[in-house]
Amino acid sequence: MIPILSIVGKSDSGKTFLIERLVAGLTSRGYRIATIKHDVHGFEMDREGKDSFRHKQAGASTAVISSPNKIALVCDVDEEESLETIRDTRIRDVDLILTEGYKRADFPKIEVSLFAGSDRLLCGEEHRLVAVVANHEVTQDVPVFQEVDIPRLVDWIEERYIRDQDEQ
Amino acid sequence: MIPILSIVGKSDSGKTFLIERLVAGLTSRGYRIATIKHDVHGFEMDREGKDSFRHKQAGASTAVISSPNKIALVCDVDEEESLETIRDTRIRDVDLILTEGYKRADFPKIEVSLFAGSDRLLCGEEHRLVAVVANHEVTQDVPVFQEVDIPRLVDWIEERYIRDQDEQ
Repeated sequence: MIPILSIVGKSDSGKTFLIERLVAGLTSRGYRIATIKHDVHGFEMDREGKDSFRHKQAGASTAVISSPNKIALVCDVDEEESLETIRDTRIRDVDLILTEGYKRADFPKIEVSLFAGSDRLLCGEEHRLVAVVANHEVTQDVPVFQEVDIPRLVDWIEERYIRDQDEQ
Repeated sequence: MIPILSIVGKSDSGKTFLIERLVAGLTSRGYRIATIKHDVHGFEMDREGKDSFRHKQAGASTAVISSPNKIALVCDVDEEESLETIRDTRIRDVDLILTEGYKRADFPKIEVSLFAGSDRLLCGEEHRLVAVVANHEVTQDVPVFQEVDIPRLVDWIEERYIRDQDEQ
């Protein structure tokens, strides 16, 4: 079972920034990482005018582009898929899934609070908060990593969520 | 098993145009259609700067965006996936898969020759050519549909590749 770790935080708090740093750090150690971004507002995946977009626009419920080194897919869903469903049916051959958002899902969470205005966090331990990335003090009783500590956070994630998994 | 029908033809012969018309025609009859586009040159799926692209750029081997009505995924593959693999592992809940390209795969093919300069076709019956869409004469012994006949081609596909499948 691929482990899932969610990166949560307020708007503009640095979630994407942190995921980029974690993905780069873990990938450089040879791990394969998948990311899932939660988009509550809908999105346009494709450049307008590209052929795949034209297929989807014409009404295709699923549009795939396949090349020798990459595959891309956009498909309609009747209801939002859970992280478990996405993990079990759409992702394979990775060591860890990092999610951006999904603060209501029942997976361990790292809250990031680097760039947003307020120091008040979204999550407590009751939300399975396991760590915080912030340059300010926090009252939650979990490990706190400052921005300069992100390489140490990569170690921490590797030890706790990837190596432990391998031993199970 | 979801039936697969390939739309093949030279560059700029009207493949995407025909797929749009077929998808729209079949969708308006209540069928769910998936499309697979063969991209031999690689592609960029995402608008630059969007978060999913940033995850993928940072090294993620799979990047997913999930919303209440749509899901999108880009992932690295070690070798190009066959149409059978894509059908069996990535596509569900559709009545028909139309592919753009894949002239070397072993699935029935409709060759389109509407807009390209030459009247010479790519395929013969040995390529499982089942129909041609062209405004010019062809020597292949298969049904020929002109551009104005596309609604009739939709009937023909429905009868031959979707309804027949339902009866099996």
